[in-house]
Amino acid sequence: MMRTRPLKVALLGCGVVGSEVARIMTTHAADLAARIGAPVELAGVAVRRPDKVREGIPAELITTDATALVKRGDIDVVVELIGGIEPARSLITTAFEHGASVVSANKALLAQDGAGLHAIAEEQNKDLYYEAAVAGAIPLIRPLRESLAGDKVNRVLGIVNGTTNFILDKMDSTGAGYQEALDEASALGYAEADPTADVEGFDAAAKAAILAGIAFHTRVRLDDVYREGMTEVTAADFASAKGMGCTIKLLAICERAADGGSVTARVHPAMIPLAHPLASVRGAYNAVFVESDAAGQLMFYGPGAGGAPTASAVLGDLVAVCRNRISGATGPGASAYTQLPVSPMGEVVTRYHISLDVADKPGVLAQVATVFAEHGVSIDTVRQQGKDGEASLVVVTHHASDASLNGTVEALRNLDTVRGVASIMRVEGE
Amino acid sequence: MMRTRPLKVALLGCGVVGSEVARIMTTHAADLAARIGAPVELAGVAVRRPDKVREGIPAELITTDATALVKRGDIDVVVELIGGIEPARSLITTAFEHGASVVSANKALLAQDGAGLHAIAEEQNKDLYYEAAVAGAIPLIRPLRESLAGDKVNRVLGIVNGTTNFILDKMDSTGAGYQEALDEASALGYAEADPTADVEGFDAAAKAAILAGIAFHTRVRLDDVYREGMTEVTAADFASAKGMGCTIKLLAICERAADGGSVTARVHPAMIPLAHPLASVRGAYNAVFVESDAAGQLMFYGPGAGGAPTASAVLGDLVAVCRNRISGATGPGASAYTQLPVSPMGEVVTRYHISLDVADKPGVLAQVATVFAEHGVSIDTVRQQGKDGEASLVVVTHHASDASLNGTVEALRNLDTVRGVASIMRVEGE
Repeated sequence: MMRTRPLKVALLGCGVVGSEVARIMTTHAADLAARIGAPVELAGVAVRRPDKVREGIPAELITTDATALVKRGDIDVVVELIGGIEPARSLITTAFEHGASVVSANKALLAQDGAGLHAIAEEQNKDLYYEAAVAGAIPLIRPLRESLAGDKVNRVLGIVNGTTNFILDKMDSTGAGYQEALDEASALGYAEADPTADVEGFDAAAKAAILAGIAFHTRVRLDDVYREGMTEVTAADFASAKGMGCTIKLLAICERAADGGSVTARVHPAMIPLAHPLASVRGAYNAVFVESDAAGQLMFYGPGAGGAPTASAVLGDLVAVCRNRISGATGPGASAYTQLPVSPMGEVVTRYHISLDVADKPGVLAQVATVFAEHGVSIDTVRQQGKDGEASLVVVTHHASDASLNGTVEALRNLDTVRGVASIMRVEGE
Repeated sequence: MMRTRPLKVALLGCGVVGSEVARIMTTHAADLAARIGAPVELAGVAVRRPDKVREGIPAELITTDATALVKRGDIDVVVELIGGIEPARSLITTAFEHGASVVSANKALLAQDGAGLHAIAEEQNKDLYYEAAVAGAIPLIRPLRESLAGDKVNRVLGIVNGTTNFILDKMDSTGAGYQEALDEASALGYAEADPTADVEGFDAAAKAAILAGIAFHTRVRLDDVYREGMTEVTAADFASAKGMGCTIKLLAICERAADGGSVTARVHPAMIPLAHPLASVRGAYNAVFVESDAAGQLMFYGPGAGGAPTASAVLGDLVAVCRNRISGATGPGASAYTQLPVSPMGEVVTRYHISLDVADKPGVLAQVATVFAEHGVSIDTVRQQGKDGEASLVVVTHHASDASLNGTVEALRNLDTVRGVASIMRVEGE
């Protein structure tokens, strides 16, 4: 069954992930050939710094001209690992136009314009695979797109950013504050010098957009995803969470509305019960919890980043794409047939944990409760604690829309007896 | 893109899973058509009892002649849900020969003769998919076969039987004995009237054979799988496990030998550390932990049985097989190119927890320790507890081969001072 003409692979980018992909392609060449049904050959590697020593990659394969490489015409698969919007988008487009299929790990580009890239791939009858773009090595896109293709996914709840999970886990287990935990993450290499993309939720939001689109067979763009970072989470929040039998995680949440007519996608810190499988996801690990009509509750767990894990996902896609080229078929492409609209954050319905600093005098609780009632937000529990003439009031609500909650909080801020709103945190996964 | 001729599906068996498959095919027909690119039509349902009322299935589709149904020649996909070896094997073979691809949930048949069925499928250029055969709704076969196709899997460690996990979880959380926990499982419908296949590990062994073959790209048959049931696990074993910071699970373990030259597959109860992700898999849930070179540690979690979850897996396969038929391709078939032999249980290397009842007199520990040393089994810890002239000795070993451990235990039984070997349990997942 083995054909002898090798499939030619061009690598765009040769950093931490790219060098692992090249290494495994060399060291595991026989296995890859057996699994694909044909040998695969590294035909070119586009880099920015050609003088850097790259062990195991023949110098003659190195080029700085990525465009010329994808235009060669004899490339079967382009593996795009440079990230960002441009030149990645142009290079992928050019690759399709010159006959190649594409494997990418580029979450930013796919979140922003996955639909556009899929359209070009389909036009050219080529594959676009990107398992590595979400949660590193964890098989997620393929299970959602293929294993659950006969099911109806209602919810995706995921820890999809390892840096922030490391920080939150550290805060939870040691009682450290945000800055202290971030410093440790930086020292251990889990956080970048500029951690903004991670701690402000931009990275997770891109992944949420990709997951929501695939899960609900509709188009969800980065701008559709509500995003809150986790830099405001405090040790006091963790103490409150513990009091409720919860911990705090930065979650990417994609949901189908109860009436089925729309979807939402959001990223924010949230309390989840300790008994929830996501609560015990430690350190920099990622995990994604999926709820569907027939399958019920599934969870996928593993390393969400790193050179070798990401390379594993890239190579799994590479094998699939190569097999498709040999059989002349293409894998499942974009599926956005439901055309479900993405609702704004105000329409999201969930529960809330609100800490208020209030005056310690009679009638305050009644006043506060009235405000909640006026906005249609039903209260589940209230806990009142006095301290030096001031008091704190912790309110946990029943399910309410984000818009109603925001209205409630605005009105609470206008009460004379409310000194301040110390924290608002959503409660998920119950 | 939608073609109009529907793909025709024949259902063999219409029990708990089959009726769910039929129901979803009807209620979600538009979604399935959109995802496949063509409508799918239920063309026939073979049952044993034609008079039973089957809601939603037109009477004219019901037949008792399964052979005639698979021989019709116009069937695109046969979904085999009758289980067992015959007539399932003959029907699947006949289906391939008459032009159909096959989706099956039949773990027993695939464990016994997956290679033979794959050979016929390949000969006929047809697909054979069976995600539902292992761990119900949990995407596992597809991730192992496709997502990890560019990686090297070294180990699969799984809770793949919900009945036994329910029983062990109950014993762990309530201190109940085996029989009491089994009775509760039966009362709640988690255990069958005759629970032998579950509690003696036969069901898990079939799944281990399938998983090992796919993970290591070799042929592993049911007879190659070492099997020990969990009926001998006692409340005392759970107490010992707790003392070690462990719990007890019935595990299916597939491993590549350290030298890479062979593989092993086994099912037995084992202690695993509480910190291991598998330790917190509760109730009747299943979970499979996979360790590979590049991806590292992955876990897949979800419901391992039940009508709807199993139907989800069947329908995911159905969509894939239908897509393949439209494109004229076939999915990845059997991959046994490594031809790695399966080593016997004696060559498995792991750690052991051994409880001995011994005479409470000086020199016993030295005697026992000598026996371990003579058999090349290195001791990690010993704990000695006296009680009424008798004593118990709990030994935890370093890694040793099963053969050495068996030799040790045999020699211990021959010591005058050893009254009995109370329990031997392997320690995994460290």
